Amino acid sequence: MKKLLLIVAALATTTFSVTSHAQFAKPDDAAKYRQGALTVMAAHFGRVGAMVQGKVPFDAKAAQENIDIAVAMSKLPWAGFGPSGEGATLKNAAKPEIWKEQAKFKDLSEKSQAELIKVQTAAKTGSLDAIKAAFGAAGASCKSCHDAFRI
Amino acid sequence: MKKLLLIVAALATTTFSVTSHAQFAKPDDAAKYRQGALTVMAAHFGRVGAMVQGKVPFDAKAAQENIDIAVAMSKLPWAGFGPSGEGATLKNAAKPEIWKEQAKFKDLSEKSQAELIKVQTAAKTGSLDAIKAAFGAAGASCKSCHDAFRI
Repeated sequence: MKKLLLIVAALATTTFSVTSHAQFAKPDDAAKYRQGALTVMAAHFGRVGAMVQGKVPFDAKAAQENIDIAVAMSKLPWAGFGPSGEGATLKNAAKPEIWKEQAKFKDLSEKSQAELIKVQTAAKTGSLDAIKAAFGAAGASCKSCHDAFRI
Repeated sequence: MKKLLLIVAALATTTFSVTSHAQFAKPDDAAKYRQGALTVMAAHFGRVGAMVQGKVPFDAKAAQENIDIAVAMSKLPWAGFGPSGEGATLKNAAKPEIWKEQAKFKDLSEKSQAELIKVQTAAKTGSLDAIKAAFGAAGASCKSCHDAFRI
């Protein structure tokens, strides 16, 4: 598992873009994709949050594993918000502004990815206090994008 | 991107289990998680399939990137089919048999993961023919699990 952690951490800190290969046949396909990637990312980020909030006992290895997966996942959802993802008919919370303000959306999404990496870096210390210190800003970066672009 | 491919490939071939950290508060949370992970996995596997089927031009780098992500994603969904994932009320296609035949389910899920890794290994050769030779068995392994456990 330690080897995995190192590998996922390396993956997570690698500049990663699948946009060039991420054309979706239908906007609904893109919506399902981005919703899926965000759900998985949030689940793992939330497990770290549960430790930060004292809802579950702190487990340094579990915190590291979950933030590593969250960081790795954080590279994926954005492709679903590209041009081929506009106009989905299935229930989704994407505001039309996403496609009118792609530069702002990209900036906020990249800020969130950067904040997640800070939590990951903190997790490497094995210190819950270090994770707590970084977690709030990461959560806030998610919220700032949701406030602007999520219904 | 080459560095990423090596890293993701390494990740994908690492024995990876998040089960021990994958308790879900509600069965619906587990259902959303597994559906999300499977959706992302299928999207990337499907992009390789589109090349295999000649629907899009073969791009060795894109094929490698997508199968690498599919293999990495293939480690995640199964945690959502654990004990905490039984009894979801949201729309989902999981048959109750999954929780009655966990050993069989685990076996089929692991076979699919192994077949995906064979496609990934084939993709490393840069040969579409090699990918085609491995792709069919991978798709069939998905189907065999769906036939047994998906409504």
